[in-house]
Amino acid sequence: MNVHTPAQTSETLMANAIRVLAMDAVEAANSGHPGAPMGLADVATVLFNRFLKVDPSDPAWPDRDRFVLSAGHASMLIYAIHHLLGYDDMDAGQLRNFRQLGARTAGHPEYGHAKGIETTTGPLGQGIATAVGMALAERMQNARFGDALVDHFTYVLAGDGCLMEGISHEAIDLAGHLGLGRLIVFWDDNRITIDGPTDLSTSMDQMKRFEAAGWHVLSVDGHDAEAIAAAITDARRETGRPSMIACRTVIGKGAPTMAGSHKVHGAPLGAQEITAAKEAMGWTASPFEVPAAVKHAWEAVADRGRQARRLWEAGKQGHPLKQSFEASLARPDTGALAAAIVAYKAKLSTEAPNLATRKASELALEVVAAALPNAVGGSADLTGSNNTRTSGMRAVSRGNYRGNYLHFGIREHGMAAAMNGIALHGGFVIYGGTFLAFADYCRPAIRLSALMGVPVTYVMTHDSIGLGEDGPTHQPVETIASLRAIPNLTVIRPADAVETAEAWEIAVTAQKTPTVLCLSRQGLPTVRKDHTIENKTRRGAYLLRDTNGPRHVTLIATGSEVEIALTAADLLAVNGIKAAVVSAPSFELFARQQKAYREAVLGTAPRVGVEAAVRQGWDSLIGPEDAFIGMTGFGASAPAPELYEHFGITPAAVAAAAKALL
Amino acid sequence: MNVHTPAQTSETLMANAIRVLAMDAVEAANSGHPGAPMGLADVATVLFNRFLKVDPSDPAWPDRDRFVLSAGHASMLIYAIHHLLGYDDMDAGQLRNFRQLGARTAGHPEYGHAKGIETTTGPLGQGIATAVGMALAERMQNARFGDALVDHFTYVLAGDGCLMEGISHEAIDLAGHLGLGRLIVFWDDNRITIDGPTDLSTSMDQMKRFEAAGWHVLSVDGHDAEAIAAAITDARRETGRPSMIACRTVIGKGAPTMAGSHKVHGAPLGAQEITAAKEAMGWTASPFEVPAAVKHAWEAVADRGRQARRLWEAGKQGHPLKQSFEASLARPDTGALAAAIVAYKAKLSTEAPNLATRKASELALEVVAAALPNAVGGSADLTGSNNTRTSGMRAVSRGNYRGNYLHFGIREHGMAAAMNGIALHGGFVIYGGTFLAFADYCRPAIRLSALMGVPVTYVMTHDSIGLGEDGPTHQPVETIASLRAIPNLTVIRPADAVETAEAWEIAVTAQKTPTVLCLSRQGLPTVRKDHTIENKTRRGAYLLRDTNGPRHVTLIATGSEVEIALTAADLLAVNGIKAAVVSAPSFELFARQQKAYREAVLGTAPRVGVEAAVRQGWDSLIGPEDAFIGMTGFGASAPAPELYEHFGITPAAVAAAAKALL
Repeated sequence: MNVHTPAQTSETLMANAIRVLAMDAVEAANSGHPGAPMGLADVATVLFNRFLKVDPSDPAWPDRDRFVLSAGHASMLIYAIHHLLGYDDMDAGQLRNFRQLGARTAGHPEYGHAKGIETTTGPLGQGIATAVGMALAERMQNARFGDALVDHFTYVLAGDGCLMEGISHEAIDLAGHLGLGRLIVFWDDNRITIDGPTDLSTSMDQMKRFEAAGWHVLSVDGHDAEAIAAAITDARRETGRPSMIACRTVIGKGAPTMAGSHKVHGAPLGAQEITAAKEAMGWTASPFEVPAAVKHAWEAVADRGRQARRLWEAGKQGHPLKQSFEASLARPDTGALAAAIVAYKAKLSTEAPNLATRKASELALEVVAAALPNAVGGSADLTGSNNTRTSGMRAVSRGNYRGNYLHFGIREHGMAAAMNGIALHGGFVIYGGTFLAFADYCRPAIRLSALMGVPVTYVMTHDSIGLGEDGPTHQPVETIASLRAIPNLTVIRPADAVETAEAWEIAVTAQKTPTVLCLSRQGLPTVRKDHTIENKTRRGAYLLRDTNGPRHVTLIATGSEVEIALTAADLLAVNGIKAAVVSAPSFELFARQQKAYREAVLGTAPRVGVEAAVRQGWDSLIGPEDAFIGMTGFGASAPAPELYEHFGITPAAVAAAAKALL
Repeated sequence: MNVHTPAQTSETLMANAIRVLAMDAVEAANSGHPGAPMGLADVATVLFNRFLKVDPSDPAWPDRDRFVLSAGHASMLIYAIHHLLGYDDMDAGQLRNFRQLGARTAGHPEYGHAKGIETTTGPLGQGIATAVGMALAERMQNARFGDALVDHFTYVLAGDGCLMEGISHEAIDLAGHLGLGRLIVFWDDNRITIDGPTDLSTSMDQMKRFEAAGWHVLSVDGHDAEAIAAAITDARRETGRPSMIACRTVIGKGAPTMAGSHKVHGAPLGAQEITAAKEAMGWTASPFEVPAAVKHAWEAVADRGRQARRLWEAGKQGHPLKQSFEASLARPDTGALAAAIVAYKAKLSTEAPNLATRKASELALEVVAAALPNAVGGSADLTGSNNTRTSGMRAVSRGNYRGNYLHFGIREHGMAAAMNGIALHGGFVIYGGTFLAFADYCRPAIRLSALMGVPVTYVMTHDSIGLGEDGPTHQPVETIASLRAIPNLTVIRPADAVETAEAWEIAVTAQKTPTVLCLSRQGLPTVRKDHTIENKTRRGAYLLRDTNGPRHVTLIATGSEVEIALTAADLLAVNGIKAAVVSAPSFELFARQQKAYREAVLGTAPRVGVEAAVRQGWDSLIGPEDAFIGMTGFGASAPAPELYEHFGITPAAVAAAAKALL
């Protein structure tokens, strides 16, 4: 789009409109953060007014620029701008109801609550790290479809908090390494945090830090519109490196007595200060009323965005890649995949290989990748251990974005946030791997996957004491439970190669739910030797081995412990005890089944749960009188078979527990 | 101690001994990481031989230097050195049993498994961040007790993985800001990660990055002993800034064909390569046998350490601060604290204030801090929200370590790791605060607190939807369950100011268990109006309101929902239903009570659990037929009272659930 150079005075008015709306909305809510929107109003106005390519009449237009408010507490900035731009879901009523139940104007920007909110922010650092994924997705799509279809920027407003969080290090290192020149980060250098001046807690030279990470770095007065515009122009010209523009701002700019202080950060200014601020600005309109001149200036921004979008639409019409481009943005065509998975399962059931489920995951991924050309994935430097790279994959690197394999580096948190960004951007089916124990390292981003309903796939291997010698730091015992606790997250712990294939099908066809695959390091036999077209894992739990006549006991297990339960059933059979065996790869999916189905699977006989992990979470499947064979504390360093013996997770222990119940 | 300058050849032999032991132990285990110990052998030899102040005959001597192997997978480095130094718990049998069940030589160094292991490492980045806490504790103790009693260095060996992890950013920013000149980090710059060369995933200029954080930065050939020694000498002289020494090393140095490759990172070298390596070194001894000359050289190191320790002991004898210094290192004297807490509780029960438990925590902390002069604490930039700063506290800053309040900055993960380091160092009772939702940000370090059994206290406020308008990103719903899942972690969610005081007493008197306090943002009435000397919270759960005659129903609640349960009991009483109310601040503590006590508290009547969080984990208190009033998904942005109504966590809903059970 053409860059427009407006009169300075008009932009001051436009920015003051943001300030006034932020002050008034926070005051009405008696809650919120006026300081950051007021401090950032000038930067945001210049960005939106002169550069940003968004169309309020089609906020999800694929080639729009992405705008990420990493400093999510400044939410009134984005709500005010959307109101001024005329987004049809952001009328004055929404602003008046800032932070109220059911309003789109949540305390922090929530993806899906209002149009044009590209990602949920608030937990600091997530925005900038998610934006790295968006900027990477843009280049990867550009490499596939060219400039006419994909040619946009990702802009981020980040505060000191975002840059102090560890995740920012992972994000800027990755972005610098990959040379993401379309990523432009504004640092709101207001020198204030909640506790007081930043020099209470940091002495970081942020510009030098970003330079060390290979970034293009600029510095401006964040209230000088022409300087801001010049810096953005420079940043856009620099295509080989991401840009960071340090914007020296005054927090709460416009508040006559409170500007520049941490008091303006997270509380209403009060009627007196607001009145004085409006007086100083010469602002006479009533609260939530926008003067016509200001309205027109912002409407002109929307008009330019609409024109840019129409131009792009026109260019797309005759484009030879139009169809495949659009297909990449839709959720995967599940028909071809389903057929491929069924064929693959049939083969597995016949051949009955003994495979670690991490290896089985690699094989399933070959099937998935063949059916879904826009699958991309990677690992946090555990490629050979996570088995995340299929035979045909090529690595993405700086300047070479045609590839589909991502070396995320030893950056679990940055990886997970980037995965969210890639998924939010659109165009790809994305997965990423690490050890299950290190789910903790990326948990804040996993939580956001679930909260936003972003269908990413976490490939988490080495899922129990079965990893052996690396010891308790690497052995998840509470991790599976802690993931099952997260709402809207599907946790699947497959028992064999068949269930692993089914799990992958569930993960990549999910619409609004992220999936965690918990995969074994150690080899496991095929337990699903009877081929079924049905994806039984989708049931969450199912009867793997029924009894001849009424059951005496039901053994319920997941993942690597299903084998143990089957052997235990054999042991019990010797004693004339009829044990049914239930494989329960996903508690969440099982909870969604009809009650009759659940009751039929679980039966009325006493139950023994088996999982090499803590019992928490199992009580949806077993009652207080039932038995559980698993872990009660941390693991240990030793070969896996010895650990299973040591911690008493054996067929004999399961059989003994079953007998004790009868 | 005097710095000793030995013959180069002797040091080469000493280093080769490490290499050989590492190769042989990994080979014997058929598992492990030979590359890093071999690559770091020269650096470690120079450090131990010429500088490090440790005494194998008294490994816990307070003024020893701290040595942290942040690259924990290089565990054979520390085991080999301890063996060579003659640590009495690290004989050749331990090395032969590397990574075997019950051996002290776990896959990664585990605190408490062998003497002289200062902290558990393995999860990358934790070591360097924990070391920041140790170096800070050293300066804080030095400020209190002077050079004669406290005068040591903290040395860290960190790899690329440690420096790519986000936590390293938080750690180095904090260390640079506080000017921790006694912290010296060696970066094992071997340019190899698991996936291959580091340039697959990073382009970071680490030296520039550390300079940006205010560090003193040096660079050496990591196999040139004199250069290493000169750099360490420089680093020790620089007292105002922490030092980073970039050591260019060859991973697996000494392996003739595999050195320098990622193949040497995480697998045995194989008999052929080992034989060739030993040949090239002229090493003829049998596996796990150490030639006499090498043994003597390492014994000389131990001797010098013993002398240094004896000198220090002698100096301590007549020192005027000897007694208070030793008291600071012991666990707190609980007598005075207990009396103060009882008196404070009596006052609370009489006055019955309406207080948010975060505010009650601040008041309890005043009592704790008065009784425990070595209590230090801080917050991750939420001081006013976490209420972590008591009236008498003064901030610690660069060069001023007499203070006792820590502005940790917006660095939850770095804070938690530093807390571990401060506790491991000794001398202080340490706590730190953030919002409970951001427990996720520091979860890997919380897990290590629990795994190591380090009694730190996490002050986590804003513990439910009761925080209101900040919305779902800030509202923990699954967080309490996910923390309860961690073994050896006491999670306490007090209902009022009395329980909060009791919780603090439990936390600061814990010996080997970290504590998480879950505290409300919103005001809560005093529910413990009947004063008890007994710390009832220590029971985990107790009968708060009994019934007159047999119960019809038992209402069990935690924290802010105890008030709701009490009101529900009143509502039920109107209908002639006798409801007992159980306050259950800590599930872990309750699980430890005798069965008879637990049964008496829970009763045999139907039960309703109430907690503004997910049900997972509640099944230790309620059965499948009982009811639960809580959350089933993420929260929302609105004033707290509206959210409680919206999500149906109200006295009426509890009463209705109780009636439905009868």
